[in-house]
Amino acid sequence: MADAVSPLAPDTFPTMPPIAGVRLATHAGGIKYEERADLFLATLAAGTTVAGTFTKSLCPSAPVDWCRQVLSDGDRTARAIVCNSGNANAFTGQAGWAAAQLTAETIADALGVLPDRVFLASTGVIGEILPEEALRDGLPKLVDNLTTSSPDGWAQSADAIRTTDTYQKGAYARIGGCASHIVGIAKGSGMIAPDMATMLAFVFTDAAVEPSLLQRCLSNAVERSFNRITVDSDTSTSDTVLLFATGEQIDEDFTTEDDPRLPALQEALDTVLLDLAHQIVRDGEGATKFVEVTVTGAADDMAAKAIGLAIANSPLVKTALAAEDANWGRIVMAVGKAGEAADRDRLEIWIGPEQVTAEGWVLPSYSEERATAHLQEDEVVIRVDVGVGNGNATVWTCDLTAGYIEINAGYRS
Amino acid sequence: MADAVSPLAPDTFPTMPPIAGVRLATHAGGIKYEERADLFLATLAAGTTVAGTFTKSLCPSAPVDWCRQVLSDGDRTARAIVCNSGNANAFTGQAGWAAAQLTAETIADALGVLPDRVFLASTGVIGEILPEEALRDGLPKLVDNLTTSSPDGWAQSADAIRTTDTYQKGAYARIGGCASHIVGIAKGSGMIAPDMATMLAFVFTDAAVEPSLLQRCLSNAVERSFNRITVDSDTSTSDTVLLFATGEQIDEDFTTEDDPRLPALQEALDTVLLDLAHQIVRDGEGATKFVEVTVTGAADDMAAKAIGLAIANSPLVKTALAAEDANWGRIVMAVGKAGEAADRDRLEIWIGPEQVTAEGWVLPSYSEERATAHLQEDEVVIRVDVGVGNGNATVWTCDLTAGYIEINAGYRS
Repeated sequence: MADAVSPLAPDTFPTMPPIAGVRLATHAGGIKYEERADLFLATLAAGTTVAGTFTKSLCPSAPVDWCRQVLSDGDRTARAIVCNSGNANAFTGQAGWAAAQLTAETIADALGVLPDRVFLASTGVIGEILPEEALRDGLPKLVDNLTTSSPDGWAQSADAIRTTDTYQKGAYARIGGCASHIVGIAKGSGMIAPDMATMLAFVFTDAAVEPSLLQRCLSNAVERSFNRITVDSDTSTSDTVLLFATGEQIDEDFTTEDDPRLPALQEALDTVLLDLAHQIVRDGEGATKFVEVTVTGAADDMAAKAIGLAIANSPLVKTALAAEDANWGRIVMAVGKAGEAADRDRLEIWIGPEQVTAEGWVLPSYSEERATAHLQEDEVVIRVDVGVGNGNATVWTCDLTAGYIEINAGYRS
Repeated sequence: MADAVSPLAPDTFPTMPPIAGVRLATHAGGIKYEERADLFLATLAAGTTVAGTFTKSLCPSAPVDWCRQVLSDGDRTARAIVCNSGNANAFTGQAGWAAAQLTAETIADALGVLPDRVFLASTGVIGEILPEEALRDGLPKLVDNLTTSSPDGWAQSADAIRTTDTYQKGAYARIGGCASHIVGIAKGSGMIAPDMATMLAFVFTDAAVEPSLLQRCLSNAVERSFNRITVDSDTSTSDTVLLFATGEQIDEDFTTEDDPRLPALQEALDTVLLDLAHQIVRDGEGATKFVEVTVTGAADDMAAKAIGLAIANSPLVKTALAAEDANWGRIVMAVGKAGEAADRDRLEIWIGPEQVTAEGWVLPSYSEERATAHLQEDEVVIRVDVGVGNGNATVWTCDLTAGYIEINAGYRS
């Protein structure tokens, strides 16, 4: 089951442009998997700025601790990002921190940069020590493999950071009116599948962006993308999104908040992150449906998001979607449990184009047949108006199938 | 699958004593099910006091609205409780309220009491109108069937309120040092399975208890029992717990807060409600394991409960339990996502008697074989100390199996 490509996968991996100032490498380091690349390195031109967002878990992995520490010193520049798959280096105590340090120092030595300008990520099983010998042996070979970023290099990089993902995830966009591009790769199969933990994205642009602007753009884009998807409501120890701006397109230098090109940068970044986020949902463990949930009429946008996530996380809604069953009573239940203001007696529900309810009761015109026809498609849209205000939000999820149970009740043993 | 009795079911329904002042009836009213009782009535002696707790859903059912209204008038006495199974009378607009009124008025007329002293509950599918003819026809027959409460009557009553429950649920206790008993029946198959919605409990005592004391005892007992169980984290439109004190044991009159027998009343009530709560978890849809999660060392008791519920609700923890897989990294993940203070580097985890971790890392003495042996039992105990304070709590859940998906992706169509 975990080996078959998701039925919701895109047809092909995109042909993503090189990013000036970024070199890429992968290597089969034998961290856990046999005969596939499990180490990824991107080096970054001098002067590259960096922004990051991380898991809210109170039990974060050693690489998350490392990234937070190196970002906190005020020098928000980066020279490299190293990632291994197969081992999350989470809940590994002092040994985990030592493995993180060893990784950063080995790469830094080989590149002639400072260790605290090397960013780290790890994804895989929690609670196992990263094998030191494999790191000491594999990391120099990784550096030997460095080449200019290229379409093939992006695809190989996206492959090396996979765990239970059934396909590589990449997305890119050009910044409107500029020559600069934004390119991203990601892994995640489920917002959250912490034992093969979990959601990582590395995003690169050749624009030059002042670090606090870069962070603000990234935080905005993450809130609109990765923070609006859910597969199983579990939260990883390792979630990491890093955005690097090499500045090699030196005439495209974003330095002030009132730069008229800033909306175009934000838009391109939103596009790339939302595309990656959707690809993660499409690879949700066991998923057979890609589901968009839009909530309108909430007290405010955050309330709308909370109601949307209550619907998207409900096991009963998700099993009904898997069954292509227009069981709209479960949507009412999920709205009721969200804890946000909603007027039961003004609730309106749509399944695809079919309006189900109005004024707290099913419409005479409602056709279960038409609703079911929509649910039989691969892509399902649910819309709910809760009738109390002007807040709205859209979130994305997948259905809950026996495949999810099979994958998660099975893969570790 | 839904027809087979849960492997975790008690061997037999308990032989529960009559409660003076309570008469019972059931009737096969054809609300939804064929050839089984789906109407339940208990009548209550004049002077019976009542307390209730209800769903926190913002889309409650018409019977929940009704009970809240009749409790709000200050006259906290009751003369009857009527329940139907097969139809939740939730999200049914004005027609739902009219059906609730019709039910209360029909029963009140037949008994010669006021309608607002009749309590109501409904459980079953959301969004369908209760059939008026079936009510007009069935409710008088229900009244005709009334007999003194008896062991057989309790068993038949517990049967009539079932939906997807695979067995009847009942529990009783004697109030220590008193002649009075507390008897309860419940339904629920999953804390929450809203489409066959959901968790109901009706509890009766022949003690006389002043209404505000009764409410306080009930709220305490619910917080320690029904509020500490979860099957799938979904919240019903219909959750209702009603406690009736007939006062027929007239020399056992609890009227003041400093009554020295009050702790015995609370203890007996706690016993009955916790027993019923455990029976609901044991009937969790698809469940093969009864799981107790105890959290110690939290900032306070509510934080401990939140962490316990994060573990108990995690699909990844629950699928690992189904697989008898000692995948303790998922417990770390769940602690991390709970949002309550926890010291990753002092975290201690036990699976049954086997200590897994200490000081943020797996113990050298840890034996996965011993942990797995514990997980192969029907009853599993997980304990976590989060190392920051003195708060503690225990919650109960079941595992998440393909049976849950099968039941919930299948039963409505």
